[in-house]
Amino acid sequence: MKKIGIVGATGYTGVELLRILATHSGVSVNQVTSRSHAGSRVDAMFPNLRGYIDLEFSQPDIDKLSACDLVFFATPNGIAMQSSKPLLDNGVKVIDLAADYRIKDLSVWEKWYGMQHTTPELVESAVYGLPEIYREQIKTARLVANPGCYPTAVTLGLLPLLEKIDSLIADCKSGASGAGRKANVGTLLSEASGNFKAYAVDGHRHQPEIAQTLSTLAGKAVDLTFVPHLLPMIRGIHATLYTRLDSTQDIQDLYEKQYSNEPFVDVMPIGSHPETRSVKGSNVCRISPHRPGDGKQVVILSVIDNLVKGAAGQAVQNMNLMLGLDETQGLMTPAFLP
Amino acid sequence: MKKIGIVGATGYTGVELLRILATHSGVSVNQVTSRSHAGSRVDAMFPNLRGYIDLEFSQPDIDKLSACDLVFFATPNGIAMQSSKPLLDNGVKVIDLAADYRIKDLSVWEKWYGMQHTTPELVESAVYGLPEIYREQIKTARLVANPGCYPTAVTLGLLPLLEKIDSLIADCKSGASGAGRKANVGTLLSEASGNFKAYAVDGHRHQPEIAQTLSTLAGKAVDLTFVPHLLPMIRGIHATLYTRLDSTQDIQDLYEKQYSNEPFVDVMPIGSHPETRSVKGSNVCRISPHRPGDGKQVVILSVIDNLVKGAAGQAVQNMNLMLGLDETQGLMTPAFLP
Amino acid sequence: MKKIGIVGATGYTGVELLRILATHSGVSVNQVTSRSHAGSRVDAMFPNLRGYIDLEFSQPDIDKLSACDLVFFATPNGIAMQSSKPLLDNGVKVIDLAADYRIKDLSVWEKWYGMQHTTPELVESAVYGLPEIYREQIKTARLVANPGCYPTAVTLGLLPLLEKIDSLIADCKSGASGAGRKANVGTLLSEASGNFKAYAVDGHRHQPEIAQTLSTLAGKAVDLTFVPHLLPMIRGIHATLYTRLDSTQDIQDLYEKQYSNEPFVDVMPIGSHPETRSVKGSNVCRISPHRPGDGKQVVILSVIDNLVKGAAGQAVQNMNLMLGLDETQGLMTPAFLP
Amino acid sequence: MKKIGIVGATGYTGVELLRILATHSGVSVNQVTSRSHAGSRVDAMFPNLRGYIDLEFSQPDIDKLSACDLVFFATPNGIAMQSSKPLLDNGVKVIDLAADYRIKDLSVWEKWYGMQHTTPELVESAVYGLPEIYREQIKTARLVANPGCYPTAVTLGLLPLLEKIDSLIADCKSGASGAGRKANVGTLLSEASGNFKAYAVDGHRHQPEIAQTLSTLAGKAVDLTFVPHLLPMIRGIHATLYTRLDSTQDIQDLYEKQYSNEPFVDVMPIGSHPETRSVKGSNVCRISPHRPGDGKQVVILSVIDNLVKGAAGQAVQNMNLMLGLDETQGLMTPAFLP
Repeated sequence: MKKIGIVGATGYTGVELLRILATHSGVSVNQVTSRSHAGSRVDAMFPNLRGYIDLEFSQPDIDKLSACDLVFFATPNGIAMQSSKPLLDNGVKVIDLAADYRIKDLSVWEKWYGMQHTTPELVESAVYGLPEIYREQIKTARLVANPGCYPTAVTLGLLPLLEKIDSLIADCKSGASGAGRKANVGTLLSEASGNFKAYAVDGHRHQPEIAQTLSTLAGKAVDLTFVPHLLPMIRGIHATLYTRLDSTQDIQDLYEKQYSNEPFVDVMPIGSHPETRSVKGSNVCRISPHRPGDGKQVVILSVIDNLVKGAAGQAVQNMNLMLGLDETQGLMTPAFLP
Repeated sequence: MKKIGIVGATGYTGVELLRILATHSGVSVNQVTSRSHAGSRVDAMFPNLRGYIDLEFSQPDIDKLSACDLVFFATPNGIAMQSSKPLLDNGVKVIDLAADYRIKDLSVWEKWYGMQHTTPELVESAVYGLPEIYREQIKTARLVANPGCYPTAVTLGLLPLLEKIDSLIADCKSGASGAGRKANVGTLLSEASGNFKAYAVDGHRHQPEIAQTLSTLAGKAVDLTFVPHLLPMIRGIHATLYTRLDSTQDIQDLYEKQYSNEPFVDVMPIGSHPETRSVKGSNVCRISPHRPGDGKQVVILSVIDNLVKGAAGQAVQNMNLMLGLDETQGLMTPAFLP
Repeated sequence: MKKIGIVGATGYTGVELLRILATHSGVSVNQVTSRSHAGSRVDAMFPNLRGYIDLEFSQPDIDKLSACDLVFFATPNGIAMQSSKPLLDNGVKVIDLAADYRIKDLSVWEKWYGMQHTTPELVESAVYGLPEIYREQIKTARLVANPGCYPTAVTLGLLPLLEKIDSLIADCKSGASGAGRKANVGTLLSEASGNFKAYAVDGHRHQPEIAQTLSTLAGKAVDLTFVPHLLPMIRGIHATLYTRLDSTQDIQDLYEKQYSNEPFVDVMPIGSHPETRSVKGSNVCRISPHRPGDGKQVVILSVIDNLVKGAAGQAVQNMNLMLGLDETQGLMTPAFLP
Repeated sequence: MKKIGIVGATGYTGVELLRILATHSGVSVNQVTSRSHAGSRVDAMFPNLRGYIDLEFSQPDIDKLSACDLVFFATPNGIAMQSSKPLLDNGVKVIDLAADYRIKDLSVWEKWYGMQHTTPELVESAVYGLPEIYREQIKTARLVANPGCYPTAVTLGLLPLLEKIDSLIADCKSGASGAGRKANVGTLLSEASGNFKAYAVDGHRHQPEIAQTLSTLAGKAVDLTFVPHLLPMIRGIHATLYTRLDSTQDIQDLYEKQYSNEPFVDVMPIGSHPETRSVKGSNVCRISPHRPGDGKQVVILSVIDNLVKGAAGQAVQNMNLMLGLDETQGLMTPAFLP
């Protein structure tokens, strides 16, 4: 039984990690830290965990965390980069669910995240935790940068087409849990329900993250327009992806071949419209490529649960790979419908 | 054209006042104050008002507000009691949408609101702004305490039965806008949507307010159990009221007679189940009394829009009465359905 | 591996049974029937089951269903009573999730369900499937009447007080999935979201079901007022229960003792307000008893997921008992939050 | 006072027409027809209209309707084309809120609507009721084809750019009321809330309607990709429009000039993200054009209330023009927020 620590588990990615790990037969959660809630029971904050997680939040402590085999950082941006090094030095594996290690170009990272990076050397060695691309590297990684939610949905949706395209539009929609569990007027029920809007049209942090992956894989700069929107619901990301293909390639076949062996990518039957609820609570990305009127315009629909395949579920998938467990362990549950 | 000021108009009762007054032909809004947003345009915060309210938030200033005929306080509890006196002394009429002047017994008020009252003399002279009971007093009042949202729905629902009952249960449900427009984890969309819960079962500030009105009218202490719940939606209060009647009184007839001349209380056809959406955006309270199986148990259903008849709409109704305008002016619009 | 059949699995209790059974290690689902969808894949209708349920809907066929160890009826009222007998005669155990076998008094049943019962002899032998009361009988039952959703929440909420009370009020609120997955104007998103209402105040089928259980246990007629309401959300029931107690009994202690060994009833810490989301997707009923102001009035809060402990989860709990499996098998997953 | 009839007023566009016309000072609603509900009160179906509309639904009758100055058809597609002619012959003006007269090319219409047109001669004479383009023609029209909801949001969003573009993508999202008030599994609250999906990616009826207007105005074929999505909320359309501009045109200036005199198109301040709730219940289209990174890619955000500017409100705007009333009469109310 591998020992797991979670730093900063009072947010939505934290409680989702706890929900998934509570029934994972290969690991046990030993440490759950929170500076602000140290000393109070985890299940007092999250009553759904009553009977499953018998722990109190503790102060983050490198020594205690070093008794773990692997530590998740479910913290705001800028925390993991300050605490990962001593853990890694003590032989603990680390997965950061925030953005500290996702962007290789430090100047880009510092521009978008508005702070100076304190451990640039770790950025270089960190592996980007998208198993459908970097599975082999993740297996031996000591430090994994868990991808952002939008980048997961968009990258998986475009991966099979990468060699064939130059210019991309990603019109993305996310549930409000993507904004986290912090007091904020904009995501109050009275502000965000019964409402829909775009945001950050003129630039969003996930644009360079997606562009980095796509450009690296394509071997050339990719021109990506990324527009996020806020959905009046809790969970789910829907990416509607637009590009043009000159060839008459059978894209359904292309997608099915790309993902035929992937346990967590489901290419739907031809002509499908994947719904976000079809992945609610599950680690699956469901995709359906379309070519309206058999023209050059291609429209790809890609859905994930932003808290699972877009965060905690993917982190557990990475953990399984890093700890030599079965990649799907603890993650084989159907989505929650209705 | 009467001149109106609104103090503290950045919350939901404030924007709802502005929405209603924007098309009111008898008054003009001259002053809209906010300490935190002074200098910024009102319609930058509330784009629905673009083209209707051409004002900036200003610092609250007694001299400038004294140029108004009437000032609304749409402020948190404890603000109106500090600023009403100089306005009243300058001949300005005042309506407080908060709770500062609702409770006559100061010790009760101070216990529930956790502060000392700074103008007890005004509490005595303030009129409780429920026109269906205190219409004549409101017409000549200089200071009106606008009722709470739950008290409006419950009091109107029980008024016709007052002489006949001793013991009451009010099981009430409110939309999240009742909690206001302040950053707060508990009313985030991700916390409050898809969810339902009771709160404050062991005591809520609106219990003594309701009990005061009912006991005063009944001429004896009324035993009231009040349990509020939070609904996963923005607007609406539904009060389900339980009491027992020994007589075989025809309660439908009783209710219809009580409210036959009231412009904003609608007794529905017998056997109805009023929906909160049937009053969304309107100043109406819809009521349906039931007597299941013709037994002694009585169940009364009463619905209002918490921001209209439960706050801003009722305040405008009071304003109309205080300024000698037609009571219904600016308030005759159908509810918003669907 | 026990073999399971599900008759009529195109509704919400059906898909929820499939979701739960998909990861249950002690049984396999062999037959899923639907007259209207025979021949089409189950996971075409419910894509969340892709990769978990590799079956087509088939025509209901007594011979094929007789190869199962146990058959669930997830059908409308009036179906199970026509098909259970041949299955029982063939040695198949049966759980009916509808109401055909819940009410012992046939005249009451026929009045509320508007049809004549075709197998009255089975009504007598059927066991009411509330394990917290009838566990031992369920273990040896051949035919179990799975309780209604409201009755589960109300009965568990009142059970510890039964000997002490005469008169009860159950103010209950349910998510829209309780109305089922059939085309219906009243539960369209555009009708039911952003809205709240009571319904069936003058009489609802679940009233006699609850009264039957409570009266049987109390050994006397119980006077129950039951008022259901429709919540603008998918899942969850919240029962707010009112009664009066003359004694000074410590009710928190009473509830904790009653349920100390129950795997699926969680008495929350004193003063709690259980939220419906704290049981979303789980088989738990969370309860908190209150006594405001330490008076005679008692308020009990009881929440369940109407599709799990209120339907499919409880049915699986009953199945486990009937098949000699561990009672909690397949049901130990934390609720889904946020 | 002009006399108005509404044919088929039991759907959402019908009740919205009634809500708007209830307070319109220039017209009175004399006839409200419904085959299925003839004889029952309008306010029994729509209690929000109690006190505002004192009418029963009647059987549609050409003679009685001919006493009106103008008749709205708020019927399903294919009804208006059968009944408009006798009304027009009797001198009654007609506005069809369905699609019968929107598409000039009958073969296109018949392909998409799956029926043969019964009055092709009227198609030719009908004016497309988008006042921002066809105001002068509408003023003298006898028959107006009220535009579809998506076409209104998309066409107004693209109009200022028409001369400069060839290829367009319209990624559109609509609330569920766009699907109408008919019993349907797909738009049940339990199916459509907490969920998001695209639909009709391979072809939707509104694509040819939009393309017809844009191509006519541009004087050349426009290549339009149109992808609609279903939002988990009642009202609102958000169009996210993508095109590329070679010039360095100041698009904010372009939009402001285009719409400077339009009462119902609001170009927001530069850099805005219009929210659907900012137009809820109002007849306004709010637009914000963006050019991320000052590149060639242009992103225009356009929002309307699908039932108001996308249906009933625009129909009243057309009615005002056709009857010689002030274009804005009855339509000057702020949106409903929160």
